[in-house]
Amino acid sequence: MAKDITTRLNDYSQWYNDLVIKGNLADHSSVRGCMVIKPYGYAIWEKMRDALDKMFKDTGHVNAYFPLFIPKSFLSKEASHIEGFAKECAVVTHYRLINDPNGKGVIVDPTAKLEEELIIRPTSETIIWNTYKTWIQSYRDLPLLINQWANVVRWEMRTRLFLRTAEFLWQEGHTAHATEKEAVEETEKMLHVYAEFAEKWMAMPVILGRKTANERFAGAVETYCIEAMMQDGQALQAGTSHFLGQNFAKAFDVQFLNKEGKQELVYATSWGVSTRLIGALIMAHSDDDGLIIPPKLAPLHVVIVPIYKTADDLNKLYEKVKPLIEQLKAKNISVKFDDDETKRPGFKFAEYELRGVPVRLAMGMRDYESGTVEVARRDTKEKSVQQFEGIGNYIETLLDDIQTNIYNKAKAFRDSNIREVNTWEEFQDTIENKPGFISAHWDGTAETEEKIKELTKATIRCIPLNNQQQEGKCVYSGKPSKERVIFARAY
Amino acid sequence: MAKDITTRLNDYSQWYNDLVIKGNLADHSSVRGCMVIKPYGYAIWEKMRDALDKMFKDTGHVNAYFPLFIPKSFLSKEASHIEGFAKECAVVTHYRLINDPNGKGVIVDPTAKLEEELIIRPTSETIIWNTYKTWIQSYRDLPLLINQWANVVRWEMRTRLFLRTAEFLWQEGHTAHATEKEAVEETEKMLHVYAEFAEKWMAMPVILGRKTANERFAGAVETYCIEAMMQDGQALQAGTSHFLGQNFAKAFDVQFLNKEGKQELVYATSWGVSTRLIGALIMAHSDDDGLIIPPKLAPLHVVIVPIYKTADDLNKLYEKVKPLIEQLKAKNISVKFDDDETKRPGFKFAEYELRGVPVRLAMGMRDYESGTVEVARRDTKEKSVQQFEGIGNYIETLLDDIQTNIYNKAKAFRDSNIREVNTWEEFQDTIENKPGFISAHWDGTAETEEKIKELTKATIRCIPLNNQQQEGKCVYSGKPSKERVIFARAY
Repeated sequence: MAKDITTRLNDYSQWYNDLVIKGNLADHSSVRGCMVIKPYGYAIWEKMRDALDKMFKDTGHVNAYFPLFIPKSFLSKEASHIEGFAKECAVVTHYRLINDPNGKGVIVDPTAKLEEELIIRPTSETIIWNTYKTWIQSYRDLPLLINQWANVVRWEMRTRLFLRTAEFLWQEGHTAHATEKEAVEETEKMLHVYAEFAEKWMAMPVILGRKTANERFAGAVETYCIEAMMQDGQALQAGTSHFLGQNFAKAFDVQFLNKEGKQELVYATSWGVSTRLIGALIMAHSDDDGLIIPPKLAPLHVVIVPIYKTADDLNKLYEKVKPLIEQLKAKNISVKFDDDETKRPGFKFAEYELRGVPVRLAMGMRDYESGTVEVARRDTKEKSVQQFEGIGNYIETLLDDIQTNIYNKAKAFRDSNIREVNTWEEFQDTIENKPGFISAHWDGTAETEEKIKELTKATIRCIPLNNQQQEGKCVYSGKPSKERVIFARAY
Repeated sequence: MAKDITTRLNDYSQWYNDLVIKGNLADHSSVRGCMVIKPYGYAIWEKMRDALDKMFKDTGHVNAYFPLFIPKSFLSKEASHIEGFAKECAVVTHYRLINDPNGKGVIVDPTAKLEEELIIRPTSETIIWNTYKTWIQSYRDLPLLINQWANVVRWEMRTRLFLRTAEFLWQEGHTAHATEKEAVEETEKMLHVYAEFAEKWMAMPVILGRKTANERFAGAVETYCIEAMMQDGQALQAGTSHFLGQNFAKAFDVQFLNKEGKQELVYATSWGVSTRLIGALIMAHSDDDGLIIPPKLAPLHVVIVPIYKTADDLNKLYEKVKPLIEQLKAKNISVKFDDDETKRPGFKFAEYELRGVPVRLAMGMRDYESGTVEVARRDTKEKSVQQFEGIGNYIETLLDDIQTNIYNKAKAFRDSNIREVNTWEEFQDTIENKPGFISAHWDGTAETEEKIKELTKATIRCIPLNNQQQEGKCVYSGKPSKERVIFARAY
């Protein structure tokens, strides 16, 4: 199979698209900006969701489900929320179709107009805090630790599969607390949950940090984020966790009776990650032959390709590997024996490389006779001949090695592409010629931040947590600064 | 706690509402007809979803995700689909909000009008078959066995929590096949999956059958269903599986190259169950004290209520039951030790009865001394004193017993309320005075079916599968009939 994948060097953006489409992860749909998540892509999302869901539950959260629709008036209740938030939303204005009197299909019934328009949720703070109002009366009702898995819609003008689509899937946690301290702790706790997921499951190193005021979520007092580096050196925000203070409690009048019998406003957090993570996963690890998926998120771990001429040979090979298949399944390692007769082994090899299956076994009659098997790992493309005896345990260890290796490779790449920059010339040269993150001093003003963005397209990705405090001068204005921040161009 | 639950006898409908609201399963929202599924209700849905999802995967299906929006023109491509399907849909006409020039919040931007309106999916056949067109070329691409977990919207005028809401959660399977035989087999297979789920997990006996032409899904050649009896004798359709023939393939021009090298239209099925099942679960089993949830779907299996006066006593009790808690968790039995000091044991007992926790343990200091524990089962409300030694295994067996008992009770009730009726007088008397299902002969015409519905509000729930063939006369028209069908009033 000629996979026809554009190389990264040639056109990184087209390479990404090729992987998504040819790797069977997603497809464009007939609806502008909306994607179809295909079974192979959805299987990755299911693995992500299950792992995250367990982490949320282990930290005391429960799931619930809130309406898809938000009354238009709710959006303007929290002033900075609507001010800062994109107003590109899908708006429902009618609730009925009728047959076209001209006999051509259906038309919208003009008499079925809603009194108040409904917005498809772009995020659910407003509808949820309007509900929390009825759920929270006393300190005994707190904390409220709720998460929702849902679809949301933002009418993006320029869309890219997984990275930016009009509709996407996500989870949004919305918690309510009696004290500011507790809410801030929750915000930070969930940021660390995201970081752990990114590093341990996605094998993707991230920088934990705070956003500048400019980049904060609309309505948040503080926005925390994890930032990852893609192979082209650009940043991708992989998750955010917001401390919302009492802003939404004020807007929706959510008060509780504290232990001293006094009414107080509730403190809020919200935090979310989305199907965008699939885009991050692809861009962080894959190569010009196709996807590289860390074993912990791979829908299929092992493929066994038999190489044979006769049905009798195929039978022999199958009987030989059958106990291995059982053994792997018992270890929760998914495995496929590909005996499709219509495709040649070479074609299959290329196909499973494209799909990023971590381990490929090939066994021909010579292996059969000598008790060996060929093992190819997807991440390094190394092949080796192994004794078939004990291969189950070998594969189990190999999958762990692959997971670690993918992470280490991404981390080495990331670390070698964060550059400390101290002058404006150096900054301009670096951003143009050395893809990656720039660590530089900044004077803390929105003006400088915006000017740098305007001149270089680089934004402040975050102010790293536990940042080293050091006196310095702003790389642009020369004004005094106390710490370095991370600049990059971003997805 | 006075639970203030209306009794079934007094007002069945209000009893149902009380259980949903006071049992903390769901809440009305500020959006007309949309509900909020609260954590306890959502936990039941998660258990349902996980069990069904496993059954779908075990039968070869994979999950995918298709857009929320359907272009208006798609709906009218399959003529009978749009003709028969409710036209009460949410319609998106605009994609942007702007600040109100009068300074009062936001308004819809009149210039941001969509060229073609988008409908929020009421079901996804059209958008999915429009996609399948690009995925299916050859017999090698078939069968396509895909399921989707999603939210859908139908603008219902009269809504009831879980049973009929504008937005609800469901799964919809959409499969494509090379032959009619295979598609019909798939339709029936999935009906049996639903029946197995209803009986084994929900402990709810169901009748498997076919719908009459009148009651068929819009666009289907044949609709199969499972019908359950609620405690008021009314029927509830708990799942449907449709054989769609080549209707959607025709409408969206989905052809494949068969093994003989000829173009053919693809055969389709679709099948779905929704959060409506939670309504069915409640109405099938619960009593005037609250919910009765079969252990296999119960979010919490066992609650332990300590009865004590001093902190020292509480400590002793906790130390005593700690190994039991570990033991139960290891058996995947969820357990809560309720040491909330602000509530009395009697209050807690009533609360867990309301929530339908299958097993309640109570232990006071006398039990502690004598090595016993009080065990109360929710389904029968029987209490007994058991030796604490070995109680873990006792509970494991008890949960199985409860699951079986709930099913047997529902089945005995159902079976004793299916009545064979042979005359029109008897039919009228039975439908008015003896709640339940009526098994009667029907002449097979839509006219008779509609007349009976008009006169009695009873509809034909289904023509049971494997129905006994017997000559008879239609209960209404007196015309000849070959089999009995099931009539009932329905949710």
